[in-house]
Amino acid sequence: MKKESPEEKRRRLIMLAKASVSQAYSTGEHSVMQAIGSYNESERIRNLLHEKLEEWYGIYFPELKLSNQLSYARFVAEFGMNKKSIEMERLERLLGEASKDVLSRAGTSIGREPTEKEFEMLRSLANAELQMDELQQGLDRYLDAATKELMPNIVYLIDYKIAAELLAKAGSLTRLANMPAGTIQLLGAEKALFKHIKFHSKPPKYGVLYKLPQINTAPKGDRGRMARVYATKISIAARADAYSKNFIAKKLKEQLDKALKRHHK
Amino acid sequence: MKKESPEEKRRRLIMLAKASVSQAYSTGEHSVMQAIGSYNESERIRNLLHEKLEEWYGIYFPELKLSNQLSYARFVAEFGMNKKSIEMERLERLLGEASKDVLSRAGTSIGREPTEKEFEMLRSLANAELQMDELQQGLDRYLDAATKELMPNIVYLIDYKIAAELLAKAGSLTRLANMPAGTIQLLGAEKALFKHIKFHSKPPKYGVLYKLPQINTAPKGDRGRMARVYATKISIAARADAYSKNFIAKKLKEQLDKALKRHHK
Repeated sequence: MKKESPEEKRRRLIMLAKASVSQAYSTGEHSVMQAIGSYNESERIRNLLHEKLEEWYGIYFPELKLSNQLSYARFVAEFGMNKKSIEMERLERLLGEASKDVLSRAGTSIGREPTEKEFEMLRSLANAELQMDELQQGLDRYLDAATKELMPNIVYLIDYKIAAELLAKAGSLTRLANMPAGTIQLLGAEKALFKHIKFHSKPPKYGVLYKLPQINTAPKGDRGRMARVYATKISIAARADAYSKNFIAKKLKEQLDKALKRHHK
Repeated sequence: MKKESPEEKRRRLIMLAKASVSQAYSTGEHSVMQAIGSYNESERIRNLLHEKLEEWYGIYFPELKLSNQLSYARFVAEFGMNKKSIEMERLERLLGEASKDVLSRAGTSIGREPTEKEFEMLRSLANAELQMDELQQGLDRYLDAATKELMPNIVYLIDYKIAAELLAKAGSLTRLANMPAGTIQLLGAEKALFKHIKFHSKPPKYGVLYKLPQINTAPKGDRGRMARVYATKISIAARADAYSKNFIAKKLKEQLDKALKRHHK
């Protein structure tokens, strides 16, 4: 075999490095981590836009109260002008039950009407909020499908968005699989853990896992142990998702439910 | 005249109160203050979305560098898939000069292609950024027109968005008109002023007015005095806008330019 020149060697090594980078990004896991980040960001942004909308439209219709923020945005986009002459039927299609109350408040409102141009801005703002909601829903559907493929065992045990967050905190599926249960239990509680070590505050009992409704609705004294039970089973599920690729989650779920019940006694 | 019953009196007073609230919001100034707030927020949000987009699309095309963030978003929306088979002509329409460089980077990129579903998400994210930019541009046009109507004298002297920010910091046009020049000079520097009073740090020389290119490009030693000159003339302009409604800004502008020149000598 001919000996490699330094230049040839350099090229070969660069190609190898490139291939290994491509390899690292070839699974869908980086996409899932990006998607959960964007999902959380879009929720935050939708809230920011809503705040601005309600602050501004409040000038024209301060009496309007709707518990659902998206209904509020849709109301502004559709009925934000000439509130004293809203057709009951059209409003009912949008708001259902609440429409009678809104209509009577509109009739006696002290707010002036927005000008054409002001209304144009309000409608743009309302539509921006609705578009942000659509983005968020799209990301949600994507996460649902992508996590099922990437980590079928984990998402059989816990909500797929919480699974995606655990993955993002861990950095990769292999890393998550290699973590001891105690570390998984505290993923997302890094700040509290740091405070505990540095200032001897109370140690955290859970991080991301606190978002599980099963945990955050449980009696306070049970939560730590429950988080530990979840973390133990998630750790096993992660190893199956990362290495063996076997689907073992049905059995894990049974064990999980049993272990959780034991704690309740 | 018949004597008013307590109930009649109550109703009359409520009506008066309502009328005075309506009156307070009847001018366009609250709209302008809302619009500049939303404008700044939409800029911030567009940046947040762009960060997420570049972080995510960077998985597939890490070599892509475009100095303009909107061009980047448009590139992703249009060419985010199959980057190795982009048509030069179509790309040139979008990027002009830069297209050759981008095309050659695409040809040798180490990034894999996004799947259909991944691309769908990337495109949604890119479009969300572009929509946010449209919202911002709409608000910009609105501010341009609305400030010309509300405070023609002030916007003859300084950029209309800076004028809108001064208004928002002051709380109302009358308040702005009643402020001494020294207060206008420091609008938006409240934090620094507080620090100065409480911790004896250096006193601030300007707040919002620092955004004037005439000031922030001037030699450091001149900026404070220049801000003072601007504030003095803005104060006079504000009084004309709030009370006399006369257009006196041409003369003010001449005086302003003269005073600024004096400082340069």
